[in-house]
Amino acid sequence: MTHPERRRGPARGATSSTVAEAAGVAQSTVSRALRGDPRVREDTRRLIEETADRLGYRPSWAALAPAKNAPARTRSIAVVASDLTNPFFPTLLNPMHDELQLMGYRFVLFAERTDLPTGQEALLSLLNSSIDGVLLTTATLDSQLGPALAERDLPIVLLNRYVDGMDVDRVTADNHHGGRTAARHLLELGHRRIGVIRGPANTSTSRDRYAGVREGIAGFDVSLEIKEGPYSHQSGYQNARDLLRLPEPPTALLCGNDIIAFGAIDAVKSLGLDVPGDVSVLGFDDVPMASWEVFQLTTVHQPLSEMARAAARLLVERIEHDGDIGAGRERLFATSLVQRSTTQRHGGSLL
Amino acid sequence: MTHPERRRGPARGATSSTVAEAAGVAQSTVSRALRGDPRVREDTRRLIEETADRLGYRPSWAALAPAKNAPARTRSIAVVASDLTNPFFPTLLNPMHDELQLMGYRFVLFAERTDLPTGQEALLSLLNSSIDGVLLTTATLDSQLGPALAERDLPIVLLNRYVDGMDVDRVTADNHHGGRTAARHLLELGHRRIGVIRGPANTSTSRDRYAGVREGIAGFDVSLEIKEGPYSHQSGYQNARDLLRLPEPPTALLCGNDIIAFGAIDAVKSLGLDVPGDVSVLGFDDVPMASWEVFQLTTVHQPLSEMARAAARLLVERIEHDGDIGAGRERLFATSLVQRSTTQRHGGSLL
Repeated sequence: MTHPERRRGPARGATSSTVAEAAGVAQSTVSRALRGDPRVREDTRRLIEETADRLGYRPSWAALAPAKNAPARTRSIAVVASDLTNPFFPTLLNPMHDELQLMGYRFVLFAERTDLPTGQEALLSLLNSSIDGVLLTTATLDSQLGPALAERDLPIVLLNRYVDGMDVDRVTADNHHGGRTAARHLLELGHRRIGVIRGPANTSTSRDRYAGVREGIAGFDVSLEIKEGPYSHQSGYQNARDLLRLPEPPTALLCGNDIIAFGAIDAVKSLGLDVPGDVSVLGFDDVPMASWEVFQLTTVHQPLSEMARAAARLLVERIEHDGDIGAGRERLFATSLVQRSTTQRHGGSLL
Repeated sequence: MTHPERRRGPARGATSSTVAEAAGVAQSTVSRALRGDPRVREDTRRLIEETADRLGYRPSWAALAPAKNAPARTRSIAVVASDLTNPFFPTLLNPMHDELQLMGYRFVLFAERTDLPTGQEALLSLLNSSIDGVLLTTATLDSQLGPALAERDLPIVLLNRYVDGMDVDRVTADNHHGGRTAARHLLELGHRRIGVIRGPANTSTSRDRYAGVREGIAGFDVSLEIKEGPYSHQSGYQNARDLLRLPEPPTALLCGNDIIAFGAIDAVKSLGLDVPGDVSVLGFDDVPMASWEVFQLTTVHQPLSEMARAAARLLVERIEHDGDIGAGRERLFATSLVQRSTTQRHGGSLL
């Protein structure tokens, strides 16, 4: 109950309850409105802002002067990604934006080009004192960027992919279970020759999904033909064409993510074949495009929106209460099969 | 030829030519290598860096101390966009990144949510002294952000869309001509009932494309049914469904951009109809997805990569030589029809 110094702040007695009462709204609405929460109607927000101004109320989180002993905060988060052309990525951004805004933060997106030697240096120099924390979404297993940032004591959360040996907060889907589910679905449909088009082996997503696939077929009389490439349409297209021109082509293509699956579907069509009549195709992610009529892709769903929100919350907690938290926390989200129209029975179930 | 003061800088006599000679490469290669141009091989880059270090050469643009009378530069550009889920947008990013890197700059992407009341305030406060200039890619005609930035004397280039009354550099495609070309293509194929699904009326792209369409059909016996919505799959899907359930449905859908066209194609399929057998569909942009086998979308091409590079160059010129340039410059890029498989003849040509 000590209150050692009086700071310039809310006028005596002006609290969010006072404002709520004067404006005739709930207290929670006052807080939401002043944070810019989109769930508050524009006219309500105006009313609340005017009332707060009139009463001299200022929410504590909006104070420009940082609290004593607390580092100056910019309330800005850096979100780092390398593959913006993957529709997976933009899907994460809106929920992340909204969750951060609820907590009074905003983000800046850094589009990393990991294929260029100079990309990471430039990035490191940008991530200077004007950033409170970093969300890494496309780190590779051998990423140099993550450890370099950790050395600077900058709060980090890994979203989607993790980095071996980095003890920081991470949010991922259960990719191993997802890979296993995908493989079992194809076994259940009777497929015995399966082409796998993996993502890059230096990503945790690709490694874990593939391990799940191997576990899923273990003990069954099934042949796998493996290809590997970037998470891109081009990789799906080229690798599927190669697989389908083998002397004994696979009857199903199990793809490392949805964008690879879209490329694989294009490859099937380019050879005059039909999905799923001639070849079944299975994706991973369940991006919004997967449910478009032209695709109706059977895929493994991961809850991208919830994952993005969880990562935002972990990072803000880490920024605001780092000392109280301790070692890296892990949030693992369940994956599940979404059956649409690109997989089809090819014989009796093997299960 | 005056040289009033000696600055800490390259050692006497060490120039890019000296380094080139010592390393046995062309002078232009030295400059490229030190800027991180990806066209320079990794081993060549290393050799040049070592040689430059040994001779004490430092390119003038890399000097940390700013020139007298010149403002301190961060060599960072802000790229502002609102709709990252439109595949149009990521397509601009890679060429923009590469062109900026050639000139020794990098960019930070600001994902604006123009649908939120607080979005622009947050953005403005982020665009502080750590940015040399701004590329606005999704400004609306009545944008407040553009003028607010211009007031701060921050160099700005408008890419893709312009803002009424803002005299700054701008790079656009010839959307008016593109709209006209799209309309004429449908007239040539004999379509007399055309559904138009425009983008938002408060964007220059939508306004100019639509004006071109109106001009294209002027004087012909053609009926237009107009719908308007965001540049999104959802808008294309819902508006196309509405149009196709009219008592006299259109035989062709002229869409404001490719993503609207993808939604329209989905709508046609959802009604059990065929593209182009029952309905022709036409897009605008020519994003990479338009050429995927599942779409093979007939569309109006705009040279996105060249546009992105031109915008990057204009902005850097503006940052480095603002005083010498004068009023806003305009770069207008030609558009052209790309005929693929989603449009089909529906009677004798009207042209």
